[in-house]
Amino acid sequence: MGEEVENKQVIFKNYVTGFPKESDMELKTTRIQLKLPEDCSSGAILVKNLFLSCDPYMRSRMSKIEGHYTESLTPGSPVTGLGVARVLDSCHPKFKQGDLLWGLTGWEEYSLITAPDTCFRIEPTDVPLSYYTGILGMPGMTAYAGFYELCSPKKGERVYISAASGAVGQLVGQFAKLLGCYVVGSAGTKEKVDLLKNKFGFDEAFNYKEEPDLVAALKRYFPDGIDIYFENVGGKMLDAVLLNMRVHGRIAVCGLISQYNLEQHEGVKNLFCLITKRVRMEGFLVLDYYHLYPKFLEMVLPQIKEGKITYVEDIVEGLDKAPAALIGLFSGKNVGKQVVVVAHE
Amino acid sequence: MGEEVENKQVIFKNYVTGFPKESDMELKTTRIQLKLPEDCSSGAILVKNLFLSCDPYMRSRMSKIEGHYTESLTPGSPVTGLGVARVLDSCHPKFKQGDLLWGLTGWEEYSLITAPDTCFRIEPTDVPLSYYTGILGMPGMTAYAGFYELCSPKKGERVYISAASGAVGQLVGQFAKLLGCYVVGSAGTKEKVDLLKNKFGFDEAFNYKEEPDLVAALKRYFPDGIDIYFENVGGKMLDAVLLNMRVHGRIAVCGLISQYNLEQHEGVKNLFCLITKRVRMEGFLVLDYYHLYPKFLEMVLPQIKEGKITYVEDIVEGLDKAPAALIGLFSGKNVGKQVVVVAHE
Repeated sequence: MGEEVENKQVIFKNYVTGFPKESDMELKTTRIQLKLPEDCSSGAILVKNLFLSCDPYMRSRMSKIEGHYTESLTPGSPVTGLGVARVLDSCHPKFKQGDLLWGLTGWEEYSLITAPDTCFRIEPTDVPLSYYTGILGMPGMTAYAGFYELCSPKKGERVYISAASGAVGQLVGQFAKLLGCYVVGSAGTKEKVDLLKNKFGFDEAFNYKEEPDLVAALKRYFPDGIDIYFENVGGKMLDAVLLNMRVHGRIAVCGLISQYNLEQHEGVKNLFCLITKRVRMEGFLVLDYYHLYPKFLEMVLPQIKEGKITYVEDIVEGLDKAPAALIGLFSGKNVGKQVVVVAHE
Repeated sequence: MGEEVENKQVIFKNYVTGFPKESDMELKTTRIQLKLPEDCSSGAILVKNLFLSCDPYMRSRMSKIEGHYTESLTPGSPVTGLGVARVLDSCHPKFKQGDLLWGLTGWEEYSLITAPDTCFRIEPTDVPLSYYTGILGMPGMTAYAGFYELCSPKKGERVYISAASGAVGQLVGQFAKLLGCYVVGSAGTKEKVDLLKNKFGFDEAFNYKEEPDLVAALKRYFPDGIDIYFENVGGKMLDAVLLNMRVHGRIAVCGLISQYNLEQHEGVKNLFCLITKRVRMEGFLVLDYYHLYPKFLEMVLPQIKEGKITYVEDIVEGLDKAPAALIGLFSGKNVGKQVVVVAHE
């Protein structure tokens, strides 16, 4: 039998309607044995969590949902989400003790992962390990699949990205710049707008909160219209974009973060533009594209090493900061990818 | 100089907001010379109109529009629209006297067509000539392009069509049946629903006006969800469909007739389904697909002759009935493709 240790956890208290609060989660300490049963019939692995990822999609899992692509969190149990972890013990052929992985884990110090098949082993590289919650993990694959597989981008096209400094948006913009597109992003603070222009190399960026007329703002940055819109926001922004689309434009619908906490979604009124401008609008989930992950790493790892792509993270230290970090996503508090450090090795 | 004759016309009086009325048009009789000037420098042709087509897209041309794919009608001038006509005189190499054509013409007995390049010559066939306003003309090409080019249909898929007995819908449904799909259509009267089931061979059909809960109605006809939605309607219907789409479903946005007369469009609230179900939603205009017209005729003409495809028209006699026929489209008065006979030869 292995050592029994304390295991600090972030417990999901109950289903949420409207805007989530820190108090929808609570800290608790239990104990866990750091060894799997000898017979190993479970196929499970035991991991030590290092980094946890805060992602907008997690909001939907805080509601009671049915027939969705993902499952609700379980009231009374730890929050679950993506993270980077070290394997302490393994009953699964894909992983051995000491391996690093990223995948679905618990918001706690140590987790028993019962379906390790969905996790990705991390091969040693010299990029920060936390990147596997972001640029080298789910958000990176999301940017890659959404931009290259859905948007059919071509050199010189005009690309607009909302929530552009976030985990996905900052990458989409850099991919588009590398391809030779004109790229504009929007975000909700001056600091984020500065990042877009000075760090990520966007051609232009603006603070949507300072624009009383979004239609006019987009017209200013796209006098000839938008070829590609990478949609992270929804609602009024989508309506303004629709009016500014170019003929045969494409919209990749990645997220609708402005709507997640509304009990009644805002109605989008300008869908007639889909016809008049012959626009293709397509929703996607990264889980349909993970077969491209090796190809993605092959492209993006050298770009990171050569400094052609940069990545900004907003890192908080300690599990006890995790609830606030998650809630902060929905008011745009984070600057860059929101990561929680659980343990330094 | 040719004979000078009376030319009865339907004049468009002024731009319309909200629901159009018959009184937005008026009849007038002018005179016209049935001969083009000798020098023929215009490249124009002179035609005798036989059939005129009433189409939903014409509503947008009754508003003052800018930057649209089509132009507003001209107040004080005849309504323009698609029709079938006989060439009386030609200054254009593509047409000679006696030819039949379909294309953009005037709502009048005789028209001078100044841009005949956009017209299609009709080769002699034994199908009714009025079909070139419908199944063999723009609506037919619309159904063909929308279904085959946008919907990526496969045998066995579940197809839903709104405004299904209209000029386009009835064809989409028959194309889908020929491919081996399960096909359900909706319409606004019992007579139309009967047509869908008994004449066009839809698997099921329902009267949307008798369904207090469209989401539940669609669930009844599509317990496993909808793979393909051919959208002619918009608004509440689209919201109900979004909730009933299957994963990787496709929506071809052909028209939004429920919205055309609203000063403020209804908001569509369920776009999050585009993400959760990974749905592709694409608007289109038939004018991007006319290069496929010869291929389309090659497919559809034999199917008509062999009785594999049928077509229902709602034919009114005489130009003076044209305004009421056009207005009737927007309250769903027509049963099948709305055609106006201007002259029998």
